[in-house]
Amino acid sequence: MKLAEFSIAQLQNALVCGDLSAREIAQQTLSAIEQHNPALNAWTEITADRMLQEADIIDRQRRDGQPLPPLAAVPYAVKNLFDVAGYSTLAGASLFSDRPAAREDAWAVNKLAQSGALLSGMLNMDAYAYGFTTENSHYGATHNPRDLTRIAGGSSGGSAAAVAAGLVHFSLGTDTNGSIRVPASLCGILGLKPTFGRLSRSGSHPFVASLDHIGPFARSTKDLALVYDALQGRDSTDAFQADQSPQPTLAALSKGQEGLRCGVLGGYFHQLCNEDARAAVATTARALNASDEVTFADAEIARSSAFLISASEGGNHYLPALRATPERFEPLSRERLLAGAMIPAAWYIQAQRFRRHFQQQVLPLFAHFDVLIAPATPCSATTIGQETMHINGVDLPTRASMGMLTQPISFLGLPVTTVPLQTASGLPIGVQLIAAPFKEEMALRAARALEQQGLVMAQAATVSK
Amino acid sequence: MKLAEFSIAQLQNALVCGDLSAREIAQQTLSAIEQHNPALNAWTEITADRMLQEADIIDRQRRDGQPLPPLAAVPYAVKNLFDVAGYSTLAGASLFSDRPAAREDAWAVNKLAQSGALLSGMLNMDAYAYGFTTENSHYGATHNPRDLTRIAGGSSGGSAAAVAAGLVHFSLGTDTNGSIRVPASLCGILGLKPTFGRLSRSGSHPFVASLDHIGPFARSTKDLALVYDALQGRDSTDAFQADQSPQPTLAALSKGQEGLRCGVLGGYFHQLCNEDARAAVATTARALNASDEVTFADAEIARSSAFLISASEGGNHYLPALRATPERFEPLSRERLLAGAMIPAAWYIQAQRFRRHFQQQVLPLFAHFDVLIAPATPCSATTIGQETMHINGVDLPTRASMGMLTQPISFLGLPVTTVPLQTASGLPIGVQLIAAPFKEEMALRAARALEQQGLVMAQAATVSK
Repeated sequence: MKLAEFSIAQLQNALVCGDLSAREIAQQTLSAIEQHNPALNAWTEITADRMLQEADIIDRQRRDGQPLPPLAAVPYAVKNLFDVAGYSTLAGASLFSDRPAAREDAWAVNKLAQSGALLSGMLNMDAYAYGFTTENSHYGATHNPRDLTRIAGGSSGGSAAAVAAGLVHFSLGTDTNGSIRVPASLCGILGLKPTFGRLSRSGSHPFVASLDHIGPFARSTKDLALVYDALQGRDSTDAFQADQSPQPTLAALSKGQEGLRCGVLGGYFHQLCNEDARAAVATTARALNASDEVTFADAEIARSSAFLISASEGGNHYLPALRATPERFEPLSRERLLAGAMIPAAWYIQAQRFRRHFQQQVLPLFAHFDVLIAPATPCSATTIGQETMHINGVDLPTRASMGMLTQPISFLGLPVTTVPLQTASGLPIGVQLIAAPFKEEMALRAARALEQQGLVMAQAATVSK
Repeated sequence: MKLAEFSIAQLQNALVCGDLSAREIAQQTLSAIEQHNPALNAWTEITADRMLQEADIIDRQRRDGQPLPPLAAVPYAVKNLFDVAGYSTLAGASLFSDRPAAREDAWAVNKLAQSGALLSGMLNMDAYAYGFTTENSHYGATHNPRDLTRIAGGSSGGSAAAVAAGLVHFSLGTDTNGSIRVPASLCGILGLKPTFGRLSRSGSHPFVASLDHIGPFARSTKDLALVYDALQGRDSTDAFQADQSPQPTLAALSKGQEGLRCGVLGGYFHQLCNEDARAAVATTARALNASDEVTFADAEIARSSAFLISASEGGNHYLPALRATPERFEPLSRERLLAGAMIPAAWYIQAQRFRRHFQQQVLPLFAHFDVLIAPATPCSATTIGQETMHINGVDLPTRASMGMLTQPISFLGLPVTTVPLQTASGLPIGVQLIAAPFKEEMALRAARALEQQGLVMAQAATVSK
């Protein structure tokens, strides 16, 4: 059995029974990455020494008969905007290639290290996390393991590709406007964007403080919940973290669909996608007994407001560097960031005011529904370099439009599990399972129900050069 | 004994014993307002019918032997930016004089009505709450009851003058950058600016959503705590309210100074004030055994950032009206608001980022101190119309500079009790007693300790025409 075919629980069993050592897992993982990464371009850095050291610690604990931590010897990798001690944090940008090395791990990476997971390296992304395709002008595009001619989606494209290719069991990404959900959809894996403020962002390179989230990718709901549970915890240094206690979700998965009230998001979310996406939503709705359709008034304004906030905060963040070294910027983003720095404060404030208004309009819906269903992307993965995509009779710019269905949801700050279904073409497309704030459990249980019905694309892709 | 000489507790006793009826209290209050308001210009609207109706309800409850609510028959008034059912909410602006009448009371006014208090009317303020002097070009300046030639301070100048003149027992004001603390200091009464997010702002006309607070004025710490306790409660419709349970403070006052660790704010707060302010701080420090001095690095940047945020959010709020009817604006604020609407988002966002940084720098101080002491204003009340004031060898613009010592503290969101001391000239000056977030009790206990030592200017002013 290949490593990718083990669930995390099976991996733990194999470890406990002595069928596999942590070092064997690390070595097999590093060897598979070496073999397949050239075709994928998912890893920008491989942390082989650290991985083997982390593995040896687990093996020592095993030999000493110590209890093993919950993610013992599970291979993973992180988007290259998380601090990893001893490495420069790139945030996908050559601008940062000569940055001093991080002195310590990001808060989330530290939690995973404490949980026994084995870090294989750092993963490609759109520069500054500003994009939905992971076509990085400096580090190259990441290729989709389901079809190497296609984009992996972005901005956490490397994180999704690494898991979809079966090279690691999970990865960390970030999601500001869709950067976990879009690549999860296009690469055909599960992704969790938690509630805004749920997980600590300390030590992750910021893009839009008002909208940035971190979250995990995995190939099954149990693995996803296990990793999410390991990432929870209060970090008093993160001014944006909500004052909420950890709420473990893994045990609740067994409840599945029981009592879940599910609805379908219509209107904007029905119009701005193709037949594949509509079919995936219809399948999901049938499986979850979701017969009622609800609409968000002003979803277009929500998307525009998210754009304004992203451009303004991104512009503010990069303004000193744009003034000093504009030539070092990702050409796909330089002018967007400059324009963002010139947006009037009155527009930005209006967008933030609309956000609160929109939340007040939408949140009462969760008195009637536990989970709302919407497509994660308008279509399956497009071809690398493809500038436009044809959606519902209109040609739309690919790089901006891949996130148009995720953007209004992260603007609300709601937790979302993205679940991949197979389309008629064989390519995956993701469905967003959206819950009320801090009800990640509901979104995960709905995902589990789909999985139990055999609707979720589960196996890793076979990458062939 | 005149009404103003009763504490709220004494008033309740007189009511219960039948020495005074609620109607008598209302009638005496209305008659005193009629007599003295022409000299003060504190009330912009007198709600005589409502006050008498509210009094009659209390008298009926009394006759029926029902238990009386905690503020039964206590006369009060509110800054004219609180909604009062049946009246147009002015926010000090002729711009709003033809606004439709409010359909219901503001959340805080409703709480006070439920607590049995008697509303006498609405009070003058700087237009839009943008100012520190209550020199309102349309409604006229409010005169300071301690010296009618002087300003009452602002923007809640009418609220402070009404209480200082002994015409009501308490009032409501708002504080964005100092609008409770400045007039409390200049009129010689107590004011409480609670923690940002502590009290519901629903139904109060906004100025700067990121900085606006509501809070009470009174002439004694017990009255202040009693009113503050009545104002607490969760309001799910206020998106800015913190998720905190009510924490009654009245009972804790008896602890007074016991165990309070007090310090003095030096640096910026010592330099930007005159000898009267320094003497008041020194007296307070002695009384509270505060020997250690602490400084806030970057207090100037905090003030600048509060300015940028205020101008930007104010500019955003008024931009549609500035476009439509610029001629209807307060001339003292029109150009400030226009300039605010043109601030780049990158500056506004930087100011908000600095706010979080500044909070992270300052909040750890409260591991060592329960209360920090600083002057509330650089000097005592200046003369109405006086454009500049001489502070520490420099002429500064009065209207902007009266708030320079309060602005960095509200920027932090900290709770502050302002306590008036008498200066050598006989005029009052206020001292800020600053506590950690949601520790209003500490600031009130420090105020109570000063009061018990006879240091707090307590009686109402005698207003003579």
